[in-house]
Amino acid sequence: MAEVDGGFRTLDEQSLIDYISATPAVSSRLGNDLEGISVKEVGDGNLNFVYIVSNSSGGSVVIKQAIPYIRCIGESWPMTKERAYFEALTLREHGRLCTAHVPEVYNFDRNLSLIAMRYVEPPHIILRKGLIAGIEYPLLAEHMSEYMARTLFFTSLLFRSTTEHKREVANYCGNVELCRLTEQVVFSDPYKVSQYNRTSPYLDHDAEIVREDDILKLEVAGLKSMFCERSQALIHGDLHTGSVMVTTESTQVIDPEFAFYGPMGFDIGAFVGNLILAFFSQDGHTDGGKDRIAYKEWILKTIEDTWNLFHKKFICLWNENRDVGEAYLVDVYKKPELLLLVQGKYMKDLFHDSLGFGAAKMIRRIVGVAHVEDFES
Amino acid sequence: MAEVDGGFRTLDEQSLIDYISATPAVSSRLGNDLEGISVKEVGDGNLNFVYIVSNSSGGSVVIKQAIPYIRCIGESWPMTKERAYFEALTLREHGRLCTAHVPEVYNFDRNLSLIAMRYVEPPHIILRKGLIAGIEYPLLAEHMSEYMARTLFFTSLLFRSTTEHKREVANYCGNVELCRLTEQVVFSDPYKVSQYNRTSPYLDHDAEIVREDDILKLEVAGLKSMFCERSQALIHGDLHTGSVMVTTESTQVIDPEFAFYGPMGFDIGAFVGNLILAFFSQDGHTDGGKDRIAYKEWILKTIEDTWNLFHKKFICLWNENRDVGEAYLVDVYKKPELLLLVQGKYMKDLFHDSLGFGAAKMIRRIVGVAHVEDFES
Repeated sequence: MAEVDGGFRTLDEQSLIDYISATPAVSSRLGNDLEGISVKEVGDGNLNFVYIVSNSSGGSVVIKQAIPYIRCIGESWPMTKERAYFEALTLREHGRLCTAHVPEVYNFDRNLSLIAMRYVEPPHIILRKGLIAGIEYPLLAEHMSEYMARTLFFTSLLFRSTTEHKREVANYCGNVELCRLTEQVVFSDPYKVSQYNRTSPYLDHDAEIVREDDILKLEVAGLKSMFCERSQALIHGDLHTGSVMVTTESTQVIDPEFAFYGPMGFDIGAFVGNLILAFFSQDGHTDGGKDRIAYKEWILKTIEDTWNLFHKKFICLWNENRDVGEAYLVDVYKKPELLLLVQGKYMKDLFHDSLGFGAAKMIRRIVGVAHVEDFES
Repeated sequence: MAEVDGGFRTLDEQSLIDYISATPAVSSRLGNDLEGISVKEVGDGNLNFVYIVSNSSGGSVVIKQAIPYIRCIGESWPMTKERAYFEALTLREHGRLCTAHVPEVYNFDRNLSLIAMRYVEPPHIILRKGLIAGIEYPLLAEHMSEYMARTLFFTSLLFRSTTEHKREVANYCGNVELCRLTEQVVFSDPYKVSQYNRTSPYLDHDAEIVREDDILKLEVAGLKSMFCERSQALIHGDLHTGSVMVTTESTQVIDPEFAFYGPMGFDIGAFVGNLILAFFSQDGHTDGGKDRIAYKEWILKTIEDTWNLFHKKFICLWNENRDVGEAYLVDVYKKPELLLLVQGKYMKDLFHDSLGFGAAKMIRRIVGVAHVEDFES
């Protein structure tokens, strides 16, 4: 217990076990059998502590604890542990909307900023690692388009009343510190000289070109203002390939601690942008002379399928749920040609936003603080 | 005392005087002299009760009380009296930012949904009435552009941090019922057959044309979604010519109960759109053969001046307050040609939004529920 703060303490192995014993919603997932329990710290993320807890009879649970600073940087960059509240809330909300692709939350302890949730077990691995290893995931586009279409559609005004919408927007305004982190690392730091950028020495010239490009800065400023001002849907907020765990049959989206009501294109762009980065990094991963031409084609097809399937599923949800949300007049739904016009414009704007945010996310991963393993290795 | 509801009661003349006697912040405005006090109900607005209270020694105060329904329609259309809280909050915030054009709040009683404020004394009249009477207000554009530039600039991310912004946005999300009223009467009802529209019989054909125009509906849908999703600044929310009181020397903006964090163009469009309506209604007001050609030219010039002065003042505030808000990178401000590019795009987008919202407000005043006296008389 390194730290005490209004009931908060950073857990160690023993206090973690004590917490589990005292919490039936969690211990029941281990069959109330804490004999031979094993605790393994696996947090390779940038922000939190993550433990896999398992027992000898095959029960398991993941415990994720937020600490009041950014783990990969240290206590010099404080960050509210309330992010765990927004993560748990979003896991539950997105889980309700898309059960197949979001791990279940067993318990959330706000005092401890601690989430107990399903262990997304092996052979699941982080998608980013799978892409580096050159593994094809034939259902990836299908699953991710399903996840994005359902979570974004059902939390937007296409499905919600403005009353529900404003209530949720107000609540998620509380996640401002995490939003500010995104504002900084995605929309600011890459465009200026920052102590947090890591480009030296190979990318220094590219970083300089980015910093000198006025038209690019103007576009990014527009995207930043959309990110700060537009409450379109409950977005994941950090939907890169490190926030997705996969097998060839299963896709699980994790880590929505950056969630808030923002522009849908930020999620779509993050996912697609990171696939594009994975595509370009493949030439660095050729396995002993074996090139990756076929794999690169699979990535391209996955990008294409992700948008096309997203488009199809999103429109399908919209057609199935006419007259429910308050974005449009009921009359719009009575006239098929007007509905087509409205949907066409909506999807075209969304595609445009997604490309913009995707580009911003790619730039930040190349010249900003948090690089991607794809290019580092 | 017609109604009791958790401390709330609709005041009558006697209970109003009792309230004033018991409230030093108000009675002091009357020199604590309640002898020969006179109370005059003057609420000709659509929503509330408004009283002018004055005494024989020249002291005066306005008392405005919100009731839990829309006054001009009746108890069949309930409307939260919490709107008074948002009105008082906004009068104070806009008043702090633009003291010369916003009447001072002396006291706010949340239980009673009651605002005690400065009496905007004669010869001030409602601008709409002045426009019908054909009175020129040489300082109107100067004052309104000042009010809009200051209230919009200082509550936007051009001046605020995202932390302040999200806190304020969250709070004003509570004014959802008033936002919903706008959504209905501005963005919905005019485009469908509604019991609340009042067009019969002269405008029935025009209303039908509006209802059948798909491209118009598509545009209005885009404006509605911007209204619901975009938290650009603390807007007045109902800035028509009935919310402005004027003399030839003074301009006072009242009634911001629809205030929330929304698109700036909604305020600018409301004001300019209502001036355009006033322009077109002049032909109906010719005074015994005396035409209104010169007056119409003055209205046109006021419209033009309002935007041009707003543009100038807004940019001026922006230049004076570089590096303060978080909408743009500090770097933007270091390069004059980039700053010009950024400001040019911002103002062009804002002009575009203002024209769109202005048109929507004009349409709603012609075919919707709340007409304007300009055309009725």
